[in-house]
Amino acid sequence: MTARLLNSRDTELLERAGRVVPNGVWGHMATRAIGPDYPQFFSKSDGCRVWDADGNEYIDFMCAWGPNVLGYRHAEVDAAALAQMDKGDIGNGPTDKMVELAELLVDTLDHADWTLFQKNGTDATTVCVTIARAATGHRKILVARGAYHGAVPWCSPSLVGVTSEDRAHLILFDYNDITSLDAAIDEAGDDLAGILLTAFKHDVGKDQHLPEKAFLAHARAACDRTGAALILDDVRAGFRLDVRGSWARYGVKPDLAAYSKAIANGWPLAAVAGSERFREGAGKIFTTGSFWYGSAAMAAAVKTVQILRDSDALAHTEAMGERFRAGLSTISARHGFTLRQTGPAQMPMVLFDGDQDLRIANAFCAAALRHGIYLHPKHNMFLCAAHTPDDIDRALEAADGAFADILSAGILAA
Amino acid sequence: MTARLLNSRDTELLERAGRVVPNGVWGHMATRAIGPDYPQFFSKSDGCRVWDADGNEYIDFMCAWGPNVLGYRHAEVDAAALAQMDKGDIGNGPTDKMVELAELLVDTLDHADWTLFQKNGTDATTVCVTIARAATGHRKILVARGAYHGAVPWCSPSLVGVTSEDRAHLILFDYNDITSLDAAIDEAGDDLAGILLTAFKHDVGKDQHLPEKAFLAHARAACDRTGAALILDDVRAGFRLDVRGSWARYGVKPDLAAYSKAIANGWPLAAVAGSERFREGAGKIFTTGSFWYGSAAMAAAVKTVQILRDSDALAHTEAMGERFRAGLSTISARHGFTLRQTGPAQMPMVLFDGDQDLRIANAFCAAALRHGIYLHPKHNMFLCAAHTPDDIDRALEAADGAFADILSAGILAA
Repeated sequence: MTARLLNSRDTELLERAGRVVPNGVWGHMATRAIGPDYPQFFSKSDGCRVWDADGNEYIDFMCAWGPNVLGYRHAEVDAAALAQMDKGDIGNGPTDKMVELAELLVDTLDHADWTLFQKNGTDATTVCVTIARAATGHRKILVARGAYHGAVPWCSPSLVGVTSEDRAHLILFDYNDITSLDAAIDEAGDDLAGILLTAFKHDVGKDQHLPEKAFLAHARAACDRTGAALILDDVRAGFRLDVRGSWARYGVKPDLAAYSKAIANGWPLAAVAGSERFREGAGKIFTTGSFWYGSAAMAAAVKTVQILRDSDALAHTEAMGERFRAGLSTISARHGFTLRQTGPAQMPMVLFDGDQDLRIANAFCAAALRHGIYLHPKHNMFLCAAHTPDDIDRALEAADGAFADILSAGILAA
Repeated sequence: MTARLLNSRDTELLERAGRVVPNGVWGHMATRAIGPDYPQFFSKSDGCRVWDADGNEYIDFMCAWGPNVLGYRHAEVDAAALAQMDKGDIGNGPTDKMVELAELLVDTLDHADWTLFQKNGTDATTVCVTIARAATGHRKILVARGAYHGAVPWCSPSLVGVTSEDRAHLILFDYNDITSLDAAIDEAGDDLAGILLTAFKHDVGKDQHLPEKAFLAHARAACDRTGAALILDDVRAGFRLDVRGSWARYGVKPDLAAYSKAIANGWPLAAVAGSERFREGAGKIFTTGSFWYGSAAMAAAVKTVQILRDSDALAHTEAMGERFRAGLSTISARHGFTLRQTGPAQMPMVLFDGDQDLRIANAFCAAALRHGIYLHPKHNMFLCAAHTPDDIDRALEAADGAFADILSAGILAA
């Protein structure tokens, strides 16, 4: 239990940050909510490893919360981006990299006839909603309860600083629940603009659920019937589960989809991809940003998507996720308890039974840090193509040690 | 008049783009609105020069619409960013660069006690509005007619895909008009959250106006009286007019200010800087983005702000703007007509008298392209520290040639 001694630089940075940034750190990466044992600041990242500000090394299972899909500091991706940067990154318009990337995405994604680029995942979901309204002339957007679609007033998980009007045209339903979706569709009446769904149900602190094919097909049929847009928020899962888009395996095509995070292996970029039926609507809205045509990030995306498409990177990542999941299952059984492991193996959620206040999860993850792996107690985690079988096996040894620690401390009962 | 022949590569790219991107190109950099002679795609940028996709070179007066303040591909800035990138760009939290940048901004900006970082200018203005509402518990935001504050539904210049609720709590007034501002304040009553103002009046297609000190002081006093936030949208002008913030010279301090564009000389970054009174409100809202802690862009910003603070880069840029303005004035007088040149010299707006439909401006700028300078007919332009007296003199020769062209073509009457 010496983590804080090892974190003197982290403490110093947090104190300095506290003077010039409200709460020191903001948003999803603020560790306040998950306990004092977490390092807040990092000094280095490489492959599947991160080093905190004090130089402690971890095998990483957060991957920068998604952007890292091929490994941090991926040589080919970064070389492509830097080669473009050497010609010029932003200018008074796009470069040929924008065309190359748009063609590649239209060719690769199973549902896309066109694309638009942004910087944030929230930009992409906001553009999708705006296009759906522009194309249909309707206003209502159906959103699953508990789903995360971004951090601006219309979709933020917090209501602080948000007005009721910001969400006036949202109607809630339950993911995978056809009856609930139908009730929301009825409520929207002839004002239905779109149905917005994450790739799978990945709500914070809860078991994950893959989408049921019948549910997706029902949503698809409802949009076909009403002319509304079926919108896939693939920001978190896109380019990690399937390079064709996360619903390709279900045979259900969205009208509009939002991508970001993994699309350029950490270089800042987002994209909206859409179907022919929504091209005209997409061309009517005004959407832009100062850095959206930055071509270095686009070059990084071209290389990232090519590698994902042409290599076994994603199959390997899934296999590593399954190896980690199976190992955790075996180890926890040996210790005499069971874990709830849900969702895609490469985006795992690991929860403890009966751990309503996440006391066990927090203690386990804190112990895991001391054993050299970086996990998250209540958000889905991420694996990347840089994880090797040896990394996973070492991570499992660390997890084994962390389970032993919390068992011996009486935090977890076998 | 051979520009199109020189633009075969541009035409080809636009045709390809048209198949995979709605309208080919979107947003503020789409040249559709300013005429077919403009190159849409670029291949290279360096210093104060850009090269279009066909290799034609221009002395650039748009600076990527603002981000380029020290010169494209600035060696010191890019080296700082790449040195950070070599350690790692994004990870599971910030690096020490975030602290360094926040301290530097608090130290440099005359009004700032704290900062938060984002990616887009629109992120920053949206965060300001959200903080103003969170801190005051009020809803109304006063916005100047015709001002640009971003491209999402609450502030977009277009209403396509926007619902009336998105703007339910905006109240309009006229920039620099105290009576109009007071009427808006009265209309907000006890629900006033903030007054949002650009650094100066820089509306598209119109003469620019610097803020009147009495107007800013009146807005400041109104916010002091009501507890509302005085919000400076310094996205376009910040770190170009004055490294302390664009209102430092007026002695009026905003409560919240939004920065982006020039802050990292082209690396994607935005920032909100605020006063002590709004720190608590800033700490209560939820705001985040996948790439917001990217430390390469933060390292670029540290270096950019240090150079702006410690060198004569901005004074030089202003002097180059004045040289260009004076030269245009002299040349146009020699040709027998007058130009309307308004706003800060380093962010010049050049309009022709009686040119309501911008026919003359469009013809002039198209001719200027053929003479090797990239101007904009209806948006303010930007100079950067890489413009030399020789560049300005060559640009003036080019402008002289362009004036002669449109005079001889009968488009402009002397």
